[in-house]
Amino acid sequence: MKKRIAVLPGDGIGKEVVKGAIEILQAVAERFGHQFYFQYGKIGGEAIDAVGTPLPDETVELCKQSDAVLLGAVGGYKWERQPVHLRPERGLLKIRKDLNLFANLRPTNYYPSLAESSPLRNEVIEGVDMVMVRELTGGLYFGKPSERTKKNGEDAVVDTLFYQRKEMQRVIKLAFELAKTRKGKVTSVDKANVLESSRMWREVAEEVGKEYPEVVLEHMLVDNAAMQMIKKPKQFDVVVTENMFGDILSDEASVLTGSLGMLPSASLSQNGPYLYEPIHGSAPDIEGKNIANPIAMMLSAAMMLRLSFGMNEEAEAVEQAVNQVLDAGYRTPDIMSFAKKKVSTTEMVEEVKATL
Amino acid sequence: MKKRIAVLPGDGIGKEVVKGAIEILQAVAERFGHQFYFQYGKIGGEAIDAVGTPLPDETVELCKQSDAVLLGAVGGYKWERQPVHLRPERGLLKIRKDLNLFANLRPTNYYPSLAESSPLRNEVIEGVDMVMVRELTGGLYFGKPSERTKKNGEDAVVDTLFYQRKEMQRVIKLAFELAKTRKGKVTSVDKANVLESSRMWREVAEEVGKEYPEVVLEHMLVDNAAMQMIKKPKQFDVVVTENMFGDILSDEASVLTGSLGMLPSASLSQNGPYLYEPIHGSAPDIEGKNIANPIAMMLSAAMMLRLSFGMNEEAEAVEQAVNQVLDAGYRTPDIMSFAKKKVSTTEMVEEVKATL
Ligand SMILES: CC(C)[C@H](C(=O)O)[C@@H](O)C(=O)O
Ligand SMILES: CC(C)[C@H](C(=O)O)[C@@H](O)C(=O)O
Repeated sequence: MKKRIAVLPGDGIGKEVVKGAIEILQAVAERFGHQFYFQYGKIGGEAIDAVGTPLPDETVELCKQSDAVLLGAVGGYKWERQPVHLRPERGLLKIRKDLNLFANLRPTNYYPSLAESSPLRNEVIEGVDMVMVRELTGGLYFGKPSERTKKNGEDAVVDTLFYQRKEMQRVIKLAFELAKTRKGKVTSVDKANVLESSRMWREVAEEVGKEYPEVVLEHMLVDNAAMQMIKKPKQFDVVVTENMFGDILSDEASVLTGSLGMLPSASLSQNGPYLYEPIHGSAPDIEGKNIANPIAMMLSAAMMLRLSFGMNEEAEAVEQAVNQVLDAGYRTPDIMSFAKKKVSTTEMVEEVKATL
Repeated sequence: MKKRIAVLPGDGIGKEVVKGAIEILQAVAERFGHQFYFQYGKIGGEAIDAVGTPLPDETVELCKQSDAVLLGAVGGYKWERQPVHLRPERGLLKIRKDLNLFANLRPTNYYPSLAESSPLRNEVIEGVDMVMVRELTGGLYFGKPSERTKKNGEDAVVDTLFYQRKEMQRVIKLAFELAKTRKGKVTSVDKANVLESSRMWREVAEEVGKEYPEVVLEHMLVDNAAMQMIKKPKQFDVVVTENMFGDILSDEASVLTGSLGMLPSASLSQNGPYLYEPIHGSAPDIEGKNIANPIAMMLSAAMMLRLSFGMNEEAEAVEQAVNQVLDAGYRTPDIMSFAKKKVSTTEMVEEVKATL
């Protein structure tokens, strides 16, 4: 197959891990007889420096003409004090909106070989296998007004949590579709005892759930979910929630099984290209040191192979290569533990490539 | 000293644990020569059944005329399908607003004797000693509009995150005051890379921080905070955040050190009486079984002695009695582990009373 892949390395370690993922994809192309065309675009701080905006139109155009998008990470100390519209994260928020990436999927799996680097006891996390589905283009992130205001002449501020019913429907439906291919359970997280938007969310979840009699639907309040995630993470299969709750809970979930440096994500739209990125950030503190963990980015590439290109065998080959390299004891510093072999970013990539 | 205490047992195990706390307070009164007058008020489901509203005016009046308020818990299956204004939680939200309880304090401490019941590894939680300060009367919880609406003729919904600058100031100031008496560090949690309200929050934290040069101020994004809470909980001293983030993070924090059944909370106002409640809910599933853990409620009473009545010695006596009983191996089922002595709610209260 021939595929066009838009590559947005971004800032910091984004550049380093993207390079690794591309080497892996090239190895996959060779082994399985595919042709991948990589075209590079700017986003984040790099784009601000080059053209004065965190997401230039060319980048959006490039993505729209591609079959899938690979993103590294954005942000760095340099741009932290900029006015809001000139911050690297704005590029991330805008690309989600421009490509209509309404659902962010983050799998969290148990890696026996990494259990030691988890802050949780092994018996709590053994066998964890969940996917967080986060709504990505609505809610507090995009609602208007979001501005300074006055009340009785005094300074005040307002943000707006806004959702259309159909925005809830499509992401919840996606969660049910996913659950059908997995353990058959959806946990819908809301704050229905306080928020009107959560009460609508719960209604929609019930409605959509009726179309999936084979899937079990459970509602959970967000505060309780934040507890259950640590107490009994094994109870979850697919977790679906709105944008802000999803931001918090998915980062919480990411700690369960060891390192942030391990976890991939996929952002899906209705028709356009999907976007794949590691869940870790640009980590400016370790930029350029060749010590970043490239696995999250490689696994994001594997998700792309499976979800965007339908290349299941290829995706599995990458995932298995990663597992074998971990089993063989290779570790970047973030997941290093006693009696393992410490490797750099590029060495880790080499190992996975060799195993492939 | 003579003190008037408003007692609102509420629903479910609320009634059971309040009874225990009152016995302990009576024992304290006897030992230290105080007089406590307990006056009972209705709240939650009990109030709905009796007078058709989750927080009758008499209850508010009673609280306002008291030196402090002890609350058990509200809610139960019976009222779950009621219209919103007839839900027990409404009573809780309304009493916070009516008594102007703008700051909710939740300490989380490491109990060596309970480390086994934590899902986290001992080395991660050993020595944890933090207080979460949650803004309690603003934000998404009370902002208007909070209602169904339309966009282009289609169903939509809106909630509003509204804050006045002075609402931020008073709770952040309180966090700094608290930090001064502790380890001297405030972690202010926000989502300043997305929300305008968080950018104001961060500004206010900076401003207030200038008045406390002896306290270290650190900002942390809420998603990162959800991770750090599990990865390195020892880094925190005082954590301060807005209402919804605080709801989520404080429940997350509550799991760290073992059982929810252990953790007290205090809600403070500018002038009025403070309110004390365990952080656990009414737990209708174990209601009436005499197995609820009364410790969170007893420790809430201890917080009352210290914060509302300035009775430090008395508060410590209660806390020490609880510690001794735990060290001696007594456990309610929620914190039971190998080779300990399983006791009921009332037996646990008896043990603490005897130790006092
Ligand atoms: C960088 C930030 C705007 C972003 C978000 O909050 O969505 C990030 O935390 C994420 O989860 O991808
Ligand atoms: C019952 C509910 C409304 C309440 C809240 O969200 O504030 C509870 O979760 C709490 O934290 O006290």
